[in-house]
Amino acid sequence: MNVQTRARNTVPFVSVENMMNLVRDIGVERFLTELSLFIAEDFRRWPLFDKTPRVAAHSRDGVIELMPTSDGIAYGFKYVNGHPKNTKIGLQTVTAFGVLSDVATGYPVLMTEMTILTALRTASTSALVAQYLKSTGATVMALIGNGAQSEFQALAFKAICGIDEVRLYDIDPSATRRCAANLAGRGLKVTACNSAPEAVLGADIITTVTADKTNAMILTDNMVGEGVHINAVGGDCPGKTELHRDILTRARIFVEYSPQTRIEGEIQQLPADHPVTEFWQVVNGTAKGRTSDKEITLFDSVGFATEDFSALRYVQELLQDHPRCEDLDLLADPDDPRDLFGMLLRAGVA
Amino acid sequence: MNVQTRARNTVPFVSVENMMNLVRDIGVERFLTELSLFIAEDFRRWPLFDKTPRVAAHSRDGVIELMPTSDGIAYGFKYVNGHPKNTKIGLQTVTAFGVLSDVATGYPVLMTEMTILTALRTASTSALVAQYLKSTGATVMALIGNGAQSEFQALAFKAICGIDEVRLYDIDPSATRRCAANLAGRGLKVTACNSAPEAVLGADIITTVTADKTNAMILTDNMVGEGVHINAVGGDCPGKTELHRDILTRARIFVEYSPQTRIEGEIQQLPADHPVTEFWQVVNGTAKGRTSDKEITLFDSVGFATEDFSALRYVQELLQDHPRCEDLDLLADPDDPRDLFGMLLRAGVA
Repeated sequence: MNVQTRARNTVPFVSVENMMNLVRDIGVERFLTELSLFIAEDFRRWPLFDKTPRVAAHSRDGVIELMPTSDGIAYGFKYVNGHPKNTKIGLQTVTAFGVLSDVATGYPVLMTEMTILTALRTASTSALVAQYLKSTGATVMALIGNGAQSEFQALAFKAICGIDEVRLYDIDPSATRRCAANLAGRGLKVTACNSAPEAVLGADIITTVTADKTNAMILTDNMVGEGVHINAVGGDCPGKTELHRDILTRARIFVEYSPQTRIEGEIQQLPADHPVTEFWQVVNGTAKGRTSDKEITLFDSVGFATEDFSALRYVQELLQDHPRCEDLDLLADPDDPRDLFGMLLRAGVA
Repeated sequence: MNVQTRARNTVPFVSVENMMNLVRDIGVERFLTELSLFIAEDFRRWPLFDKTPRVAAHSRDGVIELMPTSDGIAYGFKYVNGHPKNTKIGLQTVTAFGVLSDVATGYPVLMTEMTILTALRTASTSALVAQYLKSTGATVMALIGNGAQSEFQALAFKAICGIDEVRLYDIDPSATRRCAANLAGRGLKVTACNSAPEAVLGADIITTVTADKTNAMILTDNMVGEGVHINAVGGDCPGKTELHRDILTRARIFVEYSPQTRIEGEIQQLPADHPVTEFWQVVNGTAKGRTSDKEITLFDSVGFATEDFSALRYVQELLQDHPRCEDLDLLADPDDPRDLFGMLLRAGVA
């Protein structure tokens, strides 16, 4: 990330079109798998990271968040919104973009769309965590909530965890049909179900990824059998949960960063001292993952800035062999850095 | 800011080149003056704004900050770095870019370079504040520190406060020469001085805008006479001040947002309960500005997110008649917002 080696005034920019080109160049399953390795690497060196809380601006219809972090060498942040009603007017619930910078100079070195990239990193993180927590021989996943994130989850669990069947359910049958159609011919057995209880039948892993901003009850206690790993993705802000409280008290709970998850995750339903394990400790070997085939494990996922940081690093590496980017004229670069006004003068500002 | 009326996937982007074009279209003095009106308007409705503290990532060589705010309708944030050593390797001490978004949908509606724009908004803010605080008939300004921000300060005070003479001093004589050359022929009497005491002789306003990241002593008490207004711009982070403490105790002190200024401003040298006035109260008439021609007034400027927000709003308005922008393909826009993966599929992702 040496800013000296390229034009000083431009920042490589990965547009939506180029992000699609990158995913096409690499292949989506390989992309998800390689990305999970970057995420795992950053979980392993977790203590290095600046864990600034995300900065959220809440409004009636949604939230806009800035999620910064740094490992001391690079700095990254993501801008992301969450507006559940947006789909009604043809807009995305979540859009995002991100920036990676050089800590030594403060200069941005990469800007990229992150709407697609966030879907990929969320799925990669879920599957990475499940790789550590699922029971031996898990092959079937229930996928409840078949919106924009669902296919990415299915393919990440196929590529990273070896899942070979997904059982789909959504309160909107057209969402399930669309998800099933998108997943056709990709080497997964896809079963459309008429209810959540039907979807979880025989499932080793249950992924919940619904979008309603309410305290919903997607899973109730009787639906979760021994040995299941629950990947709870949809409950990710205050007042938005997916699981019945009784499931939480039966499960061993894994989180990204407990101060954030206690506010935003499923565990907002539990007392503040309820024991949870931060996943990075499992990756670096200081905490146990699954301890028996009967245990219920739960990943209470809310998304953390280091995962975006890992995604930005991965895209930066990909660009070396796949230069799917444009130069963005973002940074003023006068010949003499103290002569910003002179640059304007030479541009003809009277 | 209706996102419905333009392509949903693109965000208007003002590059450095286009920012220079905009300033040229409008003229720098008119730009500074009109911008100060937007800043004043937002100071007037100050209680409306979300006053989230800026989020700073400090490192050995500098700082990277995100500065968000919102008036409930629009949301804006600025990315800005401060790396004093950058000039030694030919880079800017401060670079910045910013984004304005629609609170109702969370969609970005403007992205712009803000290195130039920050220099303009800082100068506009300084001159706006001085317009309220300077003594009657002030015409001479000392300008101590002749770096990248200096010409902007000089022209803002000319355009907004009617200053007709600037007295320049910098520890680096070449900076003073450059500043004087850049200001030549613009209707200002420009006097290069050999010391700070010489520069302040006869000055009604003293602007300090130095960049060293130390507790410097640019002004000492004996240099500041009755009736002077001090515009202290350079001291803007912990451990970085410009004024002797004795000046502070003699002056009536005005700040942008006291919780931030007590950490970052000159008043970090004073007890936490030392009385200060927030400038927005002067603008909306709930606090007094200058009360006598003998009073020493001090604007302890550190820069606040609302000023960037005002600048983003002003640029957005300018673009209506001066479309100096490009379309940035920043936002994924599938035909069906729930079908993000389908968009990838149709782009040929196998």
